[in-house]
Amino acid sequence: MPLAVGGKALNALKEHPVFGFADWCLRGIGQVVFQNNPVSGLIILGALFFNSPIYGAIAVFGVVISTATAVLLQADKGLIRDGLFGFNGALVALALIAFTSEDFHYGAVPSVYLAVYIAFGSAMTAMVFTSLANLLGPHRVAPLTMPFVLVGWLFLFAVLKFHSIDAGPLAKPVSPTQYDGTVQYTLATWYKGIGNAIGQIFFQDNWISGYLIVLGIAVNSRVSAIMALLGANVAAFVAVVYGAPEGAISDGLFGYNAALTAIALGGFFLVLTPASALYTLFGVVVSTWLWASVAIFLEPIGMPVLTSTFVIVTWLMLIGVNGFAALVPVAPADAVTPEANRRRYFKASREG
Amino acid sequence: MPLAVGGKALNALKEHPVFGFADWCLRGIGQVVFQNNPVSGLIILGALFFNSPIYGAIAVFGVVISTATAVLLQADKGLIRDGLFGFNGALVALALIAFTSEDFHYGAVPSVYLAVYIAFGSAMTAMVFTSLANLLGPHRVAPLTMPFVLVGWLFLFAVLKFHSIDAGPLAKPVSPTQYDGTVQYTLATWYKGIGNAIGQIFFQDNWISGYLIVLGIAVNSRVSAIMALLGANVAAFVAVVYGAPEGAISDGLFGYNAALTAIALGGFFLVLTPASALYTLFGVVVSTWLWASVAIFLEPIGMPVLTSTFVIVTWLMLIGVNGFAALVPVAPADAVTPEANRRRYFKASREG
Amino acid sequence: MPLAVGGKALNALKEHPVFGFADWCLRGIGQVVFQNNPVSGLIILGALFFNSPIYGAIAVFGVVISTATAVLLQADKGLIRDGLFGFNGALVALALIAFTSEDFHYGAVPSVYLAVYIAFGSAMTAMVFTSLANLLGPHRVAPLTMPFVLVGWLFLFAVLKFHSIDAGPLAKPVSPTQYDGTVQYTLATWYKGIGNAIGQIFFQDNWISGYLIVLGIAVNSRVSAIMALLGANVAAFVAVVYGAPEGAISDGLFGYNAALTAIALGGFFLVLTPASALYTLFGVVVSTWLWASVAIFLEPIGMPVLTSTFVIVTWLMLIGVNGFAALVPVAPADAVTPEANRRRYFKASREG
Repeated sequence: MPLAVGGKALNALKEHPVFGFADWCLRGIGQVVFQNNPVSGLIILGALFFNSPIYGAIAVFGVVISTATAVLLQADKGLIRDGLFGFNGALVALALIAFTSEDFHYGAVPSVYLAVYIAFGSAMTAMVFTSLANLLGPHRVAPLTMPFVLVGWLFLFAVLKFHSIDAGPLAKPVSPTQYDGTVQYTLATWYKGIGNAIGQIFFQDNWISGYLIVLGIAVNSRVSAIMALLGANVAAFVAVVYGAPEGAISDGLFGYNAALTAIALGGFFLVLTPASALYTLFGVVVSTWLWASVAIFLEPIGMPVLTSTFVIVTWLMLIGVNGFAALVPVAPADAVTPEANRRRYFKASREG
Repeated sequence: MPLAVGGKALNALKEHPVFGFADWCLRGIGQVVFQNNPVSGLIILGALFFNSPIYGAIAVFGVVISTATAVLLQADKGLIRDGLFGFNGALVALALIAFTSEDFHYGAVPSVYLAVYIAFGSAMTAMVFTSLANLLGPHRVAPLTMPFVLVGWLFLFAVLKFHSIDAGPLAKPVSPTQYDGTVQYTLATWYKGIGNAIGQIFFQDNWISGYLIVLGIAVNSRVSAIMALLGANVAAFVAVVYGAPEGAISDGLFGYNAALTAIALGGFFLVLTPASALYTLFGVVVSTWLWASVAIFLEPIGMPVLTSTFVIVTWLMLIGVNGFAALVPVAPADAVTPEANRRRYFKASREG
Repeated sequence: MPLAVGGKALNALKEHPVFGFADWCLRGIGQVVFQNNPVSGLIILGALFFNSPIYGAIAVFGVVISTATAVLLQADKGLIRDGLFGFNGALVALALIAFTSEDFHYGAVPSVYLAVYIAFGSAMTAMVFTSLANLLGPHRVAPLTMPFVLVGWLFLFAVLKFHSIDAGPLAKPVSPTQYDGTVQYTLATWYKGIGNAIGQIFFQDNWISGYLIVLGIAVNSRVSAIMALLGANVAAFVAVVYGAPEGAISDGLFGYNAALTAIALGGFFLVLTPASALYTLFGVVVSTWLWASVAIFLEPIGMPVLTSTFVIVTWLMLIGVNGFAALVPVAPADAVTPEANRRRYFKASREG
């Protein structure tokens, strides 16, 4: 019966007065990819440390700050324990290091000024999460990573203008126009591109880390892990067919939003059926194209896309979904794993 | 009694198992200018074919794709039959051809790559329409052409960067700054400008097509046809008074948003009374100025305004309108024609 | 008992058939800084006239137009009498003069064309206020100065392109990047910076006017006056620590959004407690940084920040605040002064 690693034993940990906080933070890391499971969080954290101890440490810093902020503000305990206040905080911290470090690949240890700045940014995600949850509540749609995207953009701009934060030049290309369009596609474009796409969700320019993250997803949900891989594969395929630059594909830039859209629509917020599988495929293709679109839109102001494309596409495809009788939505509060969502739905159908 | 051409006979067609779909699509074309009438749609389609068979065909393609998407997703039948899933799909298809063709005036036959891309864009409008309808539902305001504007912008950006879609340079000026400010106004500035303003709603750079579209509106509602003409006239007048460039006026660029605002506020979403007529006039003047505003805002990223100004002004003037006792709002579900809205309201007043 | 100057005597004025309108307009001036008190409005208006009779007169023009629009549209009488339809109208009028005048400091008398344009802009804020109030109503958050920001941006763009409105070059720097980063901080950076920050809320480049405005706030609420000063001080401190350019600090640019955030969160929309004081401090620090962020974002299109940062930060921190048990929100309709909010809350706590 227990498809996911962990289960009951871990739920005991979640309630523990002392270890509980660590559990919530690990779930927070897992929630970046929709996995409410501390073992997933631990494996993903390992994938980050494998690429760079700096990124691993800063992810911990971010998730701790934003989760602690929610605790101090006495937010809903159920949401805190499910790691929902942590994932945006971790992502903001990773983004602020990634885009201020001279070497995007390894990151750099932040100055005290930058560390304070990151702490405020991560803390703010807890407030923005609650506000968006309030706004979206009546529409039964989750804030997704929008708190991260909003706070990330707002905090990234200002950082470039404060003397005490020495922001390097943005080393990482953030738009397809910054890549050479004449490079040939090879086998490595594909297998590195897939790994990097998953890695880019956490700003990791390391394809092996990407596959480790897939493993972290798989211990909680096989379907979500397959969706992540399918999303990245379809994105690479679409990008190749439409002649996108090789570098952007092999760096995983076309795929990271598509992979998240695939996890979100592919069984998590919609019961997995043939119809929702097609709907997910549609969303993945659109996410691939629109990553390029948002990147080109943001280029004049030098801002990275972050996961905005995923959020926009997923929101636009989910907010009205109760108007489509061909699909079965799952309310955010009820979404567990694709497997569990499907079991519950078919059980209810049989009984009803 | 039946003021509009069609009426009962056409409602029979709407229910027909085979011809029904064609009826819904023709209504979809008509709904671009708020006319839920297949005869209106047919005349407007004729106006497009008159200007360019390519544009006529692509409008059919777009409206069929988005209406079929709604059918497949099992959306609300009433909305589908009223053509409400079609109009944004038609506009997206027209926009993607207009802004990727070397010759804006006639358009160009799309490649297979672009055709697939357009199909996805048109299909997506069905989802965005439902999402916006869900978001705006409690405020009793319609999505208007926002699904087209959002999907249009998102899909236009990306198109410029895919090798397999050969986007020509944007041949059509999209901002008043791109016109020569020294050209004198003539009589043709006015009569061509009015026709072109109506034509630009459908991306038709043909003033005769514009007047044919007015005819298409008039067969369903005389008031709406008059409003469209008044909107375009007031816009031209305001633009001249404020010294706008002649080319932008005679190309109809100042007027197409103003004409749509005039139809929307002038009897369709507000019962036509002296107070709402003044309110509409206010909205038309503001739409004229703000077209220029949005155009200048979008210029650095090279994006056309589309009908965003109309949507912004109309939303800002309608969302709170139940707070103004001087005006009588009509809920989207009850809005038929200015004539019918007015009859129903005064009948209810007499009876109540 | 009556902590605020005015009180009962003024409420009689508010109901007077003839003088009432003047009272509502003076309250409108006061509402820019959350003071529903005509004496506050009168003192602030004096501060504007002290700096420049042009600005004083244009503020009156704006507040009269937008309040009269609300009266004509038969908006809610309670809202009109509290000055809530006036403050955005006054700000739009001030902004349009400030950014089209060759001399930002004194402003310039508008042409007839510009005066008509300003009248439309001020009138439109009444509609946008009602729409935003409708949208935000279920979330118990006020529109704040967003109607001003939206209408201000939309109307500022277009103005640059109409021949009959001769917009001078934007004389005033609007972003930290436009200041010399090597100038040393002095004592004047601080005391002028604080005064200018308060002055900038009304586009007054005059630090003495700024302190007069604080006096206008103090006659209605000591706490709000202290919050305004604290907000501006913390902003200056944070800007200095993070090495911001001296000119931007002494011109008050870092501080005006922070001061507004301090008034809004510091007792007005949250009952003042140790927890909400810390929350306010957080908001003030973030507003300081994010002013720079929004300024840099808007720089390519040459738009000023206006009070957008204040609105964004305050909304993001308030919309979800009922999810934080550590804080006690005050619904917009119940928010009077920090003093009254606190008295009522503790009275209710004792009784409940």
